[in-house]
Amino acid sequence: MIDKTFLHKVRNQIIGINTKVPLINGKRIKYINFDNAASTPSFKRVAYKVKEFLYWYSNVHRGTGFKSQISTKIYDEVHDLVANFFGVDTKNNTIIFVKNTTEAINKLSNSLNLSPKDIIITTPMEHHSNLLPWRDKSKVIYINLDQDGRLDLDDLEEKLKEYKDQIKLVAISGASNVTGYINPIHKIAKLVHNYDSKILVDAAQLAPHRPIDVKDDTSSEHIDYLVFSAHKLYAPFGTGVLIAPKSTFAGNKPDYTGGGTVKAVTLDDVIWAGLPDKEEAGTPNIVGALALGESIQLLNKLEWEKIIQNEDYLSNYTLKQLRKIDEVILYGTMKSDTTTNQVGVIPFNIKGIENTLVASILANEFGIGVRNGCFCAHPYIHHLFGLSDQEIEKVKGDISKGIYTHKYGLIRISFGCYNTLAEVDRLIYAVKDIIARKKAGIDLTTNYEFDNKTAEYKPKNNINYSKYFKL
Amino acid sequence: MIDKTFLHKVRNQIIGINTKVPLINGKRIKYINFDNAASTPSFKRVAYKVKEFLYWYSNVHRGTGFKSQISTKIYDEVHDLVANFFGVDTKNNTIIFVKNTTEAINKLSNSLNLSPKDIIITTPMEHHSNLLPWRDKSKVIYINLDQDGRLDLDDLEEKLKEYKDQIKLVAISGASNVTGYINPIHKIAKLVHNYDSKILVDAAQLAPHRPIDVKDDTSSEHIDYLVFSAHKLYAPFGTGVLIAPKSTFAGNKPDYTGGGTVKAVTLDDVIWAGLPDKEEAGTPNIVGALALGESIQLLNKLEWEKIIQNEDYLSNYTLKQLRKIDEVILYGTMKSDTTTNQVGVIPFNIKGIENTLVASILANEFGIGVRNGCFCAHPYIHHLFGLSDQEIEKVKGDISKGIYTHKYGLIRISFGCYNTLAEVDRLIYAVKDIIARKKAGIDLTTNYEFDNKTAEYKPKNNINYSKYFKL
Repeated sequence: MIDKTFLHKVRNQIIGINTKVPLINGKRIKYINFDNAASTPSFKRVAYKVKEFLYWYSNVHRGTGFKSQISTKIYDEVHDLVANFFGVDTKNNTIIFVKNTTEAINKLSNSLNLSPKDIIITTPMEHHSNLLPWRDKSKVIYINLDQDGRLDLDDLEEKLKEYKDQIKLVAISGASNVTGYINPIHKIAKLVHNYDSKILVDAAQLAPHRPIDVKDDTSSEHIDYLVFSAHKLYAPFGTGVLIAPKSTFAGNKPDYTGGGTVKAVTLDDVIWAGLPDKEEAGTPNIVGALALGESIQLLNKLEWEKIIQNEDYLSNYTLKQLRKIDEVILYGTMKSDTTTNQVGVIPFNIKGIENTLVASILANEFGIGVRNGCFCAHPYIHHLFGLSDQEIEKVKGDISKGIYTHKYGLIRISFGCYNTLAEVDRLIYAVKDIIARKKAGIDLTTNYEFDNKTAEYKPKNNINYSKYFKL
Repeated sequence: MIDKTFLHKVRNQIIGINTKVPLINGKRIKYINFDNAASTPSFKRVAYKVKEFLYWYSNVHRGTGFKSQISTKIYDEVHDLVANFFGVDTKNNTIIFVKNTTEAINKLSNSLNLSPKDIIITTPMEHHSNLLPWRDKSKVIYINLDQDGRLDLDDLEEKLKEYKDQIKLVAISGASNVTGYINPIHKIAKLVHNYDSKILVDAAQLAPHRPIDVKDDTSSEHIDYLVFSAHKLYAPFGTGVLIAPKSTFAGNKPDYTGGGTVKAVTLDDVIWAGLPDKEEAGTPNIVGALALGESIQLLNKLEWEKIIQNEDYLSNYTLKQLRKIDEVILYGTMKSDTTTNQVGVIPFNIKGIENTLVASILANEFGIGVRNGCFCAHPYIHHLFGLSDQEIEKVKGDISKGIYTHKYGLIRISFGCYNTLAEVDRLIYAVKDIIARKKAGIDLTTNYEFDNKTAEYKPKNNINYSKYFKL
């Protein structure tokens, strides 16, 4: 069941929850945001705190003025807050603030002194940001997936055994941004540590939905590296985080060098600063850090059990409704009633209607924001569609020729802690309506023009965006 | 003369201009921010725009929902605004949003495919962020400075002649963050282009004080690469910018890889996206971009001539007052009445009193925020002090042993467009008061404790910061 009192309290914290958006019929409707896996709206308290902080804002480090001192104090404290939030022992580990999860993984990949002989084990279910940074620097091998797109841990163990001495890292997502599957990160950590390797958890999709404890450094279930972004945690002000053992950076030149990364510089020599300064080159995003700190505090206060309970109920309700519709295609374990441990991310398609057209109709005729396509996880999508190597090459070939179709793409709805059953009902109504019109022989594309540069169906009636918000 | 009407209008736009801060005598006083070279406060309109935008915020790229469409539109438009602001031809050049100037220079240094044979010409007056990223990747040589710390352009020409074929780039600051000297960037560009090389202007300190025109790509005075940060432009929300020819990135793997940088990905191949997407890995700081866009628009409206006129008057007034005080040491051309083209950055010392103590007294007894030390420009400070190689090695040796003194350091006041003569008067009063007390044999350190880890004099009475702002 949904805890309505709790949900009311949460919704009250979300900025833009009552924003009305235009439809192509000229009416306006309250926007439904089912695109939280891409980025979440801001908590009101986060925005309020930012506003309040601007009265005290100044640059950190070495400024003697009161504003600089207080800004430095706040900036340092957010590092500590993040450490506490994830149970990080800061004696041996460092909290590095970056721009986003992608930067965090790139920075890590640049800091591990990888050579082509080294092996990174990852999975085909990763976001591109946990695939591409490992390539070219090392050999990348992939853990097998089952037909439903879940990790095959036996295969992981075999690979750990086989490549034992060469493996530098096992890089794995905490939760998939396509299927929402939660990976058993502590179980995997234990396995990885049994073979003397280390684990990185890309928590971009997990952190907004579950509390994460990296566990004690001495625990076999310890998460060695953790990365995530504040913009998926109701604090969209440009901060990401890399949590890592300090030893990773010992003796290294920083990934990026410059202001703040040094103790001393001459024309031909340099003494690097300590952590995290050494890896936070240039003036940091102090406002972004503050926003993250405020968001974390609020999330802790809201009680995780209730966030999880509501979201689970919402996901199960949605899946139940979608399964009832014959024309809806669900993927992986979501096809059946088998419950898989997952966050509120549901991908689907409607038989015979392009995903990109469905997404456009949902937006422009029902005011529902979703995402469609391949969600920066192409290999995973290929797997879920069961594409052959030949078909994958064909897709790649088309794209290299500039032909975009999103033929193999999905519609993704992804929940935030604030979404409601009523919102899901509007989605279900919309899906049924689209199917009914299609069945009645109505041309769904009438009001749209296909843009083959982006594979988008754009409304023919140009929307005057500046009526709503402009620079 | 100061245009008071204009100044009133500007001050009305600054957040926190009336913030009162505590002094060690228990009183509170209106804060004077003379630390604008480190970072500027936010314009009110910027903060207001951010607040308004949050109602429409969603992730950019491929989201079909109205909020995603409008956010994408805004994000793209800020790129265009930046292009217009600097006169950039976007047919051949790209505007890449990053975190800060330091990231912009690092990204460029990683994108030029440098080899140890290549030469980067830079100057000893640079911020560390325009020195360190060039090292280890290429040979770095330095343009000579005169005794006052100004660039010797004849020496540049000689070096261009001598190393002609090896030179990959001439990387130079638009204005110094220590002396405020403005370099003749277009004259230098012409010289550099005569020898078929390219120029990077680090405009972090210039952009807040002067309009910059990169000029037409075909002009001999064209600035090839330009970098700057929004947090020094009254939009402290974590955005920096790299402006560069598109050709720089052609055929390259992106500096950071991941979400947004690709068109297609398979398990063993990738097709990179176009610019700027290819070099803006991960979810961008959309709010930060919006903030920059709003700030740029306001700066244009405020009229540059008035900003420059007021700041020049303020700088000259300050220098005149400081020169009257025998115990004040000024540096470079600021010692004399010779006017040098410079932005409002003034470094000084008081004879016989440590700069770190002076800065602490200014903050804690007069409510004036300055910065002291070496301002991430150690080699330039060494030059201004005329240190021998031996003395420089001694400084480095001390720091490597953990001994911080800031013996060779300065006190820097740096103006924003909103500072006033009355604020300068308080500074002058404070400087005179400090000198008078010293002369009277009063121990200036009585209320402070020296922290030898940071070379700071901290007030003995712990300040309760959380009374003012807390997480």
